[in-house]
Amino acid sequence: MSRADLAKSSCSLSRAVERVGDPWTLMILRESFLGTRRFEDFQRQTGASPHLLSQRLKQMCQDEILRKRLYCDHPQRFEYVLTEKGRDLWPMIMALRAWGDKWLGRPYSVRLTHKGCGAEMEPQLCCPDCGEPIGARDVAADIGPDLQFERNRLRT
Amino acid sequence: MSRADLAKSSCSLSRAVERVGDPWTLMILRESFLGTRRFEDFQRQTGASPHLLSQRLKQMCQDEILRKRLYCDHPQRFEYVLTEKGRDLWPMIMALRAWGDKWLGRPYSVRLTHKGCGAEMEPQLCCPDCGEPIGARDVAADIGPDLQFERNRLRT
Repeated sequence: MSRADLAKSSCSLSRAVERVGDPWTLMILRESFLGTRRFEDFQRQTGASPHLLSQRLKQMCQDEILRKRLYCDHPQRFEYVLTEKGRDLWPMIMALRAWGDKWLGRPYSVRLTHKGCGAEMEPQLCCPDCGEPIGARDVAADIGPDLQFERNRLRT
Repeated sequence: MSRADLAKSSCSLSRAVERVGDPWTLMILRESFLGTRRFEDFQRQTGASPHLLSQRLKQMCQDEILRKRLYCDHPQRFEYVLTEKGRDLWPMIMALRAWGDKWLGRPYSVRLTHKGCGAEMEPQLCCPDCGEPIGARDVAADIGPDLQFERNRLRT
Protein backbone atom coordinates (compact mmCIF):
# COMPACT_ATOMS: atom_id res chain seq x y z
CA MET A 1 0.00 0.00 0.00
CA SER A 2 1.46 3.33 -1.02
CA ARG A 3 0.92 6.61 0.74
CA ALA A 4 -1.71 7.47 -1.90
CA ASP A 5 -3.52 4.19 -1.09
CA LEU A 6 -3.53 5.08 2.60
CA ALA A 7 -5.25 8.37 1.77
CA LYS A 8 -7.98 6.54 -0.15
CA SER A 9 -8.51 3.79 2.42
CA SER A 10 -11.90 3.11 4.03
CA CYS A 11 -10.03 3.07 7.33
CA SER A 12 -10.07 6.44 9.08
CA LEU A 13 -6.91 5.49 10.96
CA SER A 14 -5.03 4.85 7.69
CA ARG A 15 -6.15 8.22 6.35
CA ALA A 16 -5.01 9.92 9.56
CA VAL A 17 -1.64 8.13 9.41
CA GLU A 18 -1.21 9.39 5.87
CA ARG A 19 -1.73 12.99 7.05
CA VAL A 20 0.22 13.10 10.32
CA GLY A 21 2.11 9.80 10.75
CA ASP A 22 5.54 11.25 10.19
CA PRO A 23 8.15 12.34 12.76
CA TRP A 24 8.49 15.92 11.50
CA THR A 25 4.77 16.58 11.35
CA LEU A 26 4.46 15.20 14.89
CA MET A 27 7.32 17.38 16.14
CA ILE A 28 5.77 20.47 14.52
CA LEU A 29 2.50 19.58 16.26
CA ARG A 30 4.31 19.26 19.59
CA GLU A 31 5.79 22.71 19.10
CA SER A 32 2.45 24.20 18.13
CA PHE A 33 0.85 22.86 21.29
CA LEU A 34 3.74 24.32 23.30
CA GLY A 35 2.97 27.72 21.73
CA THR A 36 5.59 27.92 18.95
CA ARG A 37 4.34 29.94 15.95
CA ARG A 38 7.27 31.28 13.99
CA PHE A 39 9.35 29.59 11.36
CA GLU A 40 12.69 30.20 13.05
CA ASP A 41 11.41 28.85 16.39
CA PHE A 42 10.04 25.71 14.72
CA GLN A 43 13.40 25.31 13.07
CA ARG A 44 15.39 25.65 16.29
CA GLN A 45 13.19 23.38 18.35
CA THR A 46 12.71 20.62 15.77
CA GLY A 47 16.11 20.86 14.06
CA ALA A 48 14.42 20.41 10.68
CA SER A 49 16.20 21.92 7.68
CA PRO A 50 14.53 25.07 6.29
CA HIS A 51 13.53 23.19 3.14
CA LEU A 52 11.97 20.27 4.99
CA LEU A 53 10.28 22.54 7.52
CA SER A 54 8.73 24.82 4.92
CA GLN A 55 7.54 21.78 2.98
CA ARG A 56 5.84 20.33 6.08
CA LEU A 57 4.35 23.67 7.17
CA LYS A 58 2.96 24.19 3.68
CA GLN A 59 1.42 20.71 3.67
CA MET A 60 -0.04 21.23 7.16
CA CYS A 61 -1.61 24.51 5.98
CA GLN A 62 -3.04 22.77 2.90
CA ASP A 63 -4.44 20.09 5.22
CA GLU A 64 -5.92 22.88 7.38
CA ILE A 65 -4.10 21.63 10.47
CA LEU A 66 -2.23 24.94 10.66
CA ARG A 67 -3.23 28.37 9.43
CA LYS A 68 -0.82 31.05 8.20
CA ARG A 69 -1.35 34.43 9.89
CA LEU A 70 0.27 37.75 9.08
CA TYR A 71 2.00 39.18 12.15
CA CYS A 72 4.12 41.90 10.54
CA ASP A 73 3.31 44.10 7.54
CA HIS A 74 6.74 45.57 6.65
CA PRO A 75 8.43 43.25 5.92
CA GLN A 76 5.60 40.73 5.52
CA ARG A 77 6.01 38.01 8.14
CA PHE A 78 3.75 35.06 8.84
CA GLU A 79 3.23 32.77 11.78
CA TYR A 80 1.58 29.35 11.94
CA VAL A 81 -1.26 28.67 14.32
CA LEU A 82 -3.33 25.57 14.98
CA THR A 83 -6.80 25.44 13.48
CA GLU A 84 -9.66 23.61 15.20
CA LYS A 85 -8.77 20.57 13.07
CA GLY A 86 -5.19 20.85 14.31
CA ARG A 87 -6.19 21.30 17.95
CA ASP A 88 -8.23 18.11 17.63
CA LEU A 89 -4.91 16.24 17.33
CA TRP A 90 -4.22 17.04 20.98
CA PRO A 91 -5.53 13.68 22.31
CA MET A 92 -3.11 11.89 19.99
CA ILE A 93 -0.18 14.00 21.21
CA MET A 94 -1.27 13.37 24.82
CA ALA A 95 -1.45 9.63 24.19
CA LEU A 96 2.04 9.49 22.66
CA ARG A 97 3.44 11.57 25.49
CA ALA A 98 1.83 9.35 28.16
CA TRP A 99 3.29 6.27 26.49
CA GLY A 100 6.75 7.87 26.38
CA ASP A 101 6.45 8.80 30.06
CA LYS A 102 5.44 5.30 31.07
CA TRP A 103 7.70 3.19 28.87
CA LEU A 104 10.68 5.20 27.73
CA GLY A 105 12.13 6.30 31.08
CA ARG A 106 12.64 9.73 32.58
CA PRO A 107 9.04 10.80 33.21
CA TYR A 108 7.77 14.32 33.77
CA SER A 109 8.95 16.39 30.87
CA VAL A 110 5.65 18.28 30.94
CA ARG A 111 3.30 18.32 33.93
CA LEU A 112 -0.41 18.79 33.23
CA THR A 113 -3.05 20.53 35.31
CA HIS A 114 -6.76 20.38 34.61
CA LYS A 115 -7.83 24.03 34.70
CA GLY A 116 -11.41 23.05 35.58
CA CYS A 117 -10.72 21.29 38.88
CA GLY A 118 -7.08 22.21 39.52
CA ALA A 119 -5.86 18.61 39.68
CA GLU A 120 -2.38 17.72 38.45
CA MET A 121 -3.28 14.72 36.32
CA GLU A 122 -2.68 12.51 33.33
CA PRO A 123 -5.63 12.52 30.89
CA GLN A 124 -7.37 9.14 30.84
CA LEU A 125 -9.53 7.56 28.12
CA CYS A 126 -13.07 7.02 29.41
CA CYS A 127 -16.36 5.70 28.15
CA PRO A 128 -18.48 8.85 27.69
CA ASP A 129 -21.59 6.82 28.52
CA CYS A 130 -20.72 5.33 31.92
CA GLY A 131 -17.59 7.36 32.70
CA GLU A 132 -15.40 4.31 33.43
CA PRO A 133 -11.71 4.38 32.36
CA ILE A 134 -11.17 2.17 29.31
CA GLY A 135 -8.25 0.35 27.71
CA ALA A 136 -7.74 -1.91 24.68
CA ARG A 137 -9.32 -4.93 26.37
CA ASP A 138 -12.48 -3.14 27.46
CA VAL A 139 -13.65 -2.37 23.94
CA ALA A 140 -15.06 -4.56 21.15
CA ALA A 141 -14.33 -3.36 17.61
CA ASP A 142 -16.80 -4.01 14.80
CA ILE A 143 -15.28 -3.43 11.37
CA GLY A 144 -17.67 -1.60 9.03
CA PRO A 145 -18.70 -3.02 5.63
CA ASP A 146 -16.48 -0.76 3.46
CA LEU A 147 -13.36 -1.54 5.45
CA GLN A 148 -14.23 -5.25 5.62
CA PHE A 149 -14.59 -5.28 1.84
CA GLU A 150 -11.21 -3.57 1.46
CA ARG A 151 -9.57 -6.05 3.85
CA ASN A 152 -11.07 -9.10 2.10
CA ARG A 153 -9.91 -7.81 -1.25
CA LEU A 154 -6.36 -7.47 0.07
CA ARG A 155 -6.52 -10.95 1.56
CA THR A 156 -7.09 -12.78 -1.74
CA MET B 1 17.55 17.28 15.44
CA SER B 2 18.26 13.83 14.07
CA ARG B 3 16.32 10.69 14.91
CA ALA B 4 19.09 9.81 17.40
CA ASP B 5 18.62 13.22 19.07
CA LEU B 6 14.91 12.57 19.38
CA ALA B 7 15.65 9.32 21.23
CA LYS B 8 17.86 11.18 23.72
CA SER B 9 15.50 14.11 24.24
CA SER B 10 14.19 15.07 27.69
CA CYS B 11 10.77 15.19 26.06
CA SER B 12 8.84 11.95 26.42
CA LEU B 13 6.81 12.83 23.34
CA SER B 14 9.96 13.17 21.22
CA ARG B 15 11.18 9.79 22.43
CA ALA B 16 7.81 8.24 21.62
CA VAL B 17 7.83 9.83 18.15
CA GLU B 18 11.25 8.33 17.54
CA ARG B 19 9.91 4.84 18.37
CA VAL B 20 6.51 4.82 16.66
CA GLY B 21 6.14 8.03 14.60
CA ASP B 22 6.37 6.35 11.23
CA PRO B 23 3.56 5.28 8.86
CA TRP B 24 4.58 1.62 8.65
CA THR B 25 4.95 1.15 12.39
CA LEU B 26 1.53 2.76 12.86
CA MET B 27 -0.05 0.52 10.23
CA ILE B 28 1.50 -2.58 11.85
CA LEU B 29 0.05 -1.41 15.18
CA ARG B 30 -3.37 -0.99 13.58
CA GLU B 31 -3.20 -4.55 12.28
CA SER B 32 -2.06 -5.91 15.63
CA PHE B 33 -5.03 -4.28 17.35
CA LEU B 34 -7.32 -5.80 14.70
CA GLY B 35 -5.89 -9.22 15.57
CA THR B 36 -3.33 -9.74 12.78
CA ARG B 37 -0.37 -11.86 13.93
CA ARG B 38 1.29 -13.48 10.96
CA PHE B 39 3.87 -12.08 8.63
CA GLU B 40 1.90 -12.78 5.44
CA ASP B 41 -1.25 -11.15 6.87
CA PHE B 42 0.69 -8.05 7.94
CA GLN B 43 2.12 -7.94 4.45
CA ARG B 44 -1.25 -8.20 2.71
CA GLN B 45 -3.01 -5.69 4.91
CA THR B 46 -0.25 -3.06 5.04
CA GLY B 47 1.19 -3.60 1.55
CA ALA B 48 4.70 -3.25 2.97
CA SER B 49 7.48 -5.04 1.10
CA PRO B 50 8.80 -8.19 2.86
CA HIS B 51 12.11 -6.43 3.53
CA LEU B 52 10.54 -3.32 5.03
CA LEU B 53 8.03 -5.33 7.02
CA SER B 54 10.60 -7.69 8.53
CA GLN B 55 12.80 -4.70 9.41
CA ARG B 56 9.90 -2.97 11.21
CA LEU B 57 8.72 -6.13 12.98
CA LYS B 58 12.26 -6.80 14.17
CA GLN B 59 12.58 -3.24 15.48
CA MET B 60 9.19 -3.45 17.20
CA CYS B 61 10.29 -6.71 18.88
CA GLN B 62 13.55 -5.09 19.98
CA ASP B 63 11.51 -2.21 21.38
CA GLU B 64 9.30 -4.77 23.17
CA ILE B 65 6.17 -3.43 21.48
CA LEU B 66 5.66 -6.83 19.84
CA ARG B 67 6.75 -10.28 20.94
CA LYS B 68 7.63 -13.17 18.62
CA ARG B 69 5.80 -16.39 19.46
CA LEU B 70 6.30 -19.85 17.99
CA TYR B 71 3.02 -21.18 16.57
CA CYS B 72 4.31 -24.10 14.52
CA ASP B 73 7.24 -26.43 15.26
CA HIS B 74 7.78 -28.15 11.89
CA PRO B 75 8.52 -26.00 10.00
CA GLN B 76 9.27 -23.35 12.63
CA ARG B 77 6.81 -20.48 12.23
CA PHE B 78 6.44 -17.38 14.36
CA GLU B 79 3.69 -14.88 14.93
CA TYR B 80 3.85 -11.37 16.38
CA VAL B 81 1.71 -10.38 19.34
CA LEU B 82 1.39 -7.13 21.24
CA THR B 83 3.13 -6.88 24.60
CA GLU B 84 1.74 -4.80 27.46
CA LYS B 85 3.95 -1.95 26.23
CA GLY B 86 2.47 -2.36 22.77
CA ARG B 87 -1.11 -2.54 24.04
CA ASP B 88 -0.47 0.73 25.85
CA LEU B 89 -0.30 2.40 22.42
CA TRP B 90 -4.03 1.78 22.02
CA PRO B 91 -5.07 5.28 23.20
CA MET B 92 -2.83 6.79 20.53
CA ILE B 93 -4.36 4.60 17.84
CA MET B 94 -7.85 5.49 19.12
CA ALA B 95 -7.00 9.20 19.03
CA LEU B 96 -5.71 9.05 15.45
CA ARG B 97 -8.75 7.08 14.37
CA ALA B 98 -11.17 9.52 16.01
CA TRP B 99 -9.42 12.41 14.26
CA GLY B 100 -9.66 10.62 10.92
CA ASP B 101 -13.36 9.92 11.52
CA LYS B 102 -14.08 13.53 12.37
CA TRP B 103 -11.93 15.36 9.85
CA LEU B 104 -11.13 13.13 6.90
CA GLY B 105 -14.63 12.14 5.76
CA ARG B 106 -16.37 8.78 5.57
CA PRO B 107 -16.79 7.99 9.26
CA TYR B 108 -17.47 4.57 10.78
CA SER B 109 -14.77 2.29 9.54
CA VAL B 110 -14.70 0.58 12.95
CA ARG B 111 -17.53 0.85 15.50
CA LEU B 112 -16.59 0.54 19.16
CA THR B 113 -18.58 -0.91 22.03
CA HIS B 114 -17.60 -0.61 25.68
CA LYS B 115 -17.82 -4.19 26.96
CA GLY B 116 -18.40 -2.97 30.52
CA CYS B 117 -21.63 -1.04 29.96
CA GLY B 118 -22.58 -2.12 26.43
CA ALA B 119 -22.62 1.41 25.01
CA GLU B 120 -21.60 2.05 21.42
CA MET B 121 -19.25 4.96 21.99
CA GLU B 122 -16.17 6.94 21.07
CA PRO B 123 -13.53 6.96 23.84
CA GLN B 124 -13.17 10.42 25.35
CA LEU B 125 -10.22 11.94 27.22
CA CYS B 126 -11.22 12.76 30.79
CA CYS B 127 -9.67 14.19 33.91
CA PRO B 128 -9.24 11.12 36.17
CA ASP B 129 -9.73 13.37 39.20
CA CYS B 130 -13.08 15.01 38.47
CA GLY B 131 -14.20 12.85 35.52
CA GLU B 132 -14.92 15.81 33.23
CA PRO B 133 -14.11 15.49 29.48
CA ILE B 134 -10.99 17.49 28.60
CA GLY B 135 -9.51 19.05 25.48
CA ALA B 136 -6.41 21.07 24.65
CA ARG B 137 -7.82 24.27 26.13
CA ASP B 138 -8.76 22.72 29.47
CA VAL B 139 -5.22 21.82 30.44
CA ALA B 140 -2.23 23.91 31.53
CA ALA B 141 1.19 22.48 30.63
CA ASP B 142 4.19 23.09 32.87
CA ILE B 143 7.47 22.23 31.15
CA GLY B 144 9.88 20.38 33.48
CA PRO B 145 13.42 21.65 34.19
CA ASP B 146 15.30 19.15 31.97
CA LEU B 147 13.14 19.87 28.96
CA GLN B 148 13.24 23.63 29.62
CA PHE B 149 17.02 23.48 29.70
CA GLU B 150 17.07 21.56 26.43
CA ARG B 151 14.71 24.06 24.81
CA ASN B 152 16.72 27.08 25.99
CA ARG B 153 19.91 25.52 24.68
CA LEU B 154 18.34 25.06 21.27
CA ARG B 155 17.08 28.62 21.30
CA THR B 156 20.52 30.25 21.55
